[in-house]
Amino acid sequence: MSSRTFVIGVGMTKFEKIETRDWEYPDMVVEAVGNALADAGIEYSAVQRAAVGYVFEQSAAGQRALYDVGLTGIPVVNVNNNCATGSTALMLAREWVQSGLADVALAVGFEKMTRGALSPGAGGMPKVTPLDRHLKVLMANRGWANSPMTAQFFGNAAREHMERYGTTAEQIAAVAVKNHRHSVNNPYAQFRDEYTLEQVMGDKPIHEPLTRSQCSPTSDGAGAAVVVSERFVREHGLQDRAVEILAQTLVTDTGEAFETGSDIDVVGAPMTRAAAERVFAAAGLTVGDVDVIELHDCFSINEILTYEGLGMCAEGEGGKLVESGATTYGGRWVVNPSGGLISKGHPLGATGLAQCAELTWQLRGEAGARQVDGAKVGLQHNLGLGGACVVTLYGAGTLDQEG
Amino acid sequence: MSSRTFVIGVGMTKFEKIETRDWEYPDMVVEAVGNALADAGIEYSAVQRAAVGYVFEQSAAGQRALYDVGLTGIPVVNVNNNCATGSTALMLAREWVQSGLADVALAVGFEKMTRGALSPGAGGMPKVTPLDRHLKVLMANRGWANSPMTAQFFGNAAREHMERYGTTAEQIAAVAVKNHRHSVNNPYAQFRDEYTLEQVMGDKPIHEPLTRSQCSPTSDGAGAAVVVSERFVREHGLQDRAVEILAQTLVTDTGEAFETGSDIDVVGAPMTRAAAERVFAAAGLTVGDVDVIELHDCFSINEILTYEGLGMCAEGEGGKLVESGATTYGGRWVVNPSGGLISKGHPLGATGLAQCAELTWQLRGEAGARQVDGAKVGLQHNLGLGGACVVTLYGAGTLDQEG
Repeated sequence: MSSRTFVIGVGMTKFEKIETRDWEYPDMVVEAVGNALADAGIEYSAVQRAAVGYVFEQSAAGQRALYDVGLTGIPVVNVNNNCATGSTALMLAREWVQSGLADVALAVGFEKMTRGALSPGAGGMPKVTPLDRHLKVLMANRGWANSPMTAQFFGNAAREHMERYGTTAEQIAAVAVKNHRHSVNNPYAQFRDEYTLEQVMGDKPIHEPLTRSQCSPTSDGAGAAVVVSERFVREHGLQDRAVEILAQTLVTDTGEAFETGSDIDVVGAPMTRAAAERVFAAAGLTVGDVDVIELHDCFSINEILTYEGLGMCAEGEGGKLVESGATTYGGRWVVNPSGGLISKGHPLGATGLAQCAELTWQLRGEAGARQVDGAKVGLQHNLGLGGACVVTLYGAGTLDQEG
Repeated sequence: MSSRTFVIGVGMTKFEKIETRDWEYPDMVVEAVGNALADAGIEYSAVQRAAVGYVFEQSAAGQRALYDVGLTGIPVVNVNNNCATGSTALMLAREWVQSGLADVALAVGFEKMTRGALSPGAGGMPKVTPLDRHLKVLMANRGWANSPMTAQFFGNAAREHMERYGTTAEQIAAVAVKNHRHSVNNPYAQFRDEYTLEQVMGDKPIHEPLTRSQCSPTSDGAGAAVVVSERFVREHGLQDRAVEILAQTLVTDTGEAFETGSDIDVVGAPMTRAAAERVFAAAGLTVGDVDVIELHDCFSINEILTYEGLGMCAEGEGGKLVESGATTYGGRWVVNPSGGLISKGHPLGATGLAQCAELTWQLRGEAGARQVDGAKVGLQHNLGLGGACVVTLYGAGTLDQEG
């Protein structure tokens, strides 16, 4: 199972505030898949298998969505893993190619969100299982507000980080300042406005210390990626455009995460750490080899937790890392050049594919005004509470080098 | 990708009429997985990946359900493909083992159904996509009653079969008589009562010619299977109990199915035919080599359509085949010894795993009073409207024979 796999086409819709565009989920999928196929330079008829991810739509929505692209009889598998759904679809597509089950596989992710979908008690709210087992404890310990459940989980983790490591509210807010600034150059982003630190910190409080502009918004959108074998890349002369998936790992929670009493552990930090360790080991790389990162900043604090989980700094030093400028243009890494979930938007099932699209563009040198100079290795981190975490390493020019 | 794969453990809950047992979906999963692990003689900690299928529960329900089995951090993928969900999970588990991604993979399927879930307009009803595109046409052409949408689809297909081939209502009802009779010996079946042809035909009309006892009921339940590599079977000396997955194919609809104007095509008959052809070719077998069959008799007519799709008789001859006794004990094949969906029950996500369990028991000679004498090759057919169809061939004693 050592076959190499490559992304040769990516596409997405602009992520939109809900109820902005008059579209249904098949419309989004047609647009994202159409963009990915055009980018790959192939017809849909070349696709041999498809994995379709989403959180809220009903059973077999993938077939319905692909109906409008073409009904070709290929195996279609509908998948979900909460907010890591998109990269779970990508994982299946990659494994199908890796194992020879397909030469050309399509990964799709989409979400048409509804107002209040993530509010406590909303019927449409995904149970962030197995966290639901811990909700009562959390409610008893800290009081439970009317803000979205996930904001409360991550807000509590932020408080713990502040108490334990002296991280400041300013450092946490600096993540949002950076990511909103990055998105100014991303035509696919829901928001494209810069904010000062004062504006972010003075924004509407959601769950202390998190303010509104530190939380990913409710978004519609879709993303897609075409994954192919090395043979396909060579036969079609796509070496220049192919981005290799160097390694990829999906992990889920272990029981320990819920036994430490730490809110940081409950929001998936141990999953990030475990996935990162395994993916670096599999690729024979370290985080020092990485140039550009798209990570799961569903809330500003999670970018800081993820710096630490990926080994970009020591535990507890994430706040200082963002403050130092090490994670923006001119720094050691550029993290979330797309604007991240906070500013680009977060249509749950689409996010993992949008991250893949951004890294593919970055590693090809096609990211325009938000291009990270000389980016050769990219890292994607996609986290779903309760849940799964998928970390993927991408490399550019890996076939060229071998001639 | 020629590695061989084996089912070494299966388990299910008894399928139950909804609102009979006081259980939530994790309870079902614990029971079915516990049974499968005990049957395999392994601990959950040996499981390296899990695919979990369901139709109605929300995102990442698999993680929540497995929480009660053990949180071990392994990759978990939640999947659905309408009524073919269970065998889609089985397919992923098998492919992970086949490709070396896991030595031991778990497939789980479950459903906690709700009253009226499948009625027209029910919020919980899975859109039988892409059939929803055709609903308006069907409604205009034939009138649309208050019976479940799927009953109307299959009832219309039955009428077409009667008109086109002279199939009689008695022949169609004979399927239900046979399957209800089979289930008398199945302790896992929701119904275990025999009915005469007169009773079945005189039962409450659902959608002509289908009466209530010709329709699968609304059921709760779960099923699970442990799939392992040849190495694992040999290392653990499980040759006697291991049932080989000889070949497996998942197909989806092609555009043609919706263009012929045939209701038989709309309910998936072309998918069955395509999947069967491919799986027989892959295994180097014909339907004449098969001894025992679990097929998707969601409605009695679909057993007849499936006889034809699997090549057990010529097109249009399915009614005569069931009437001849060729598909029950003493005949050429035994079809649905478990009682099938009609009598055993049909908790959507669980059905594919329950079919796998029955065939595993049959091929091991462990099916008790419903044992099919000398069964060596089994076929599973699991169909989801709009949709996917999975056909799987199983073989017993395939490692023994090679010593």
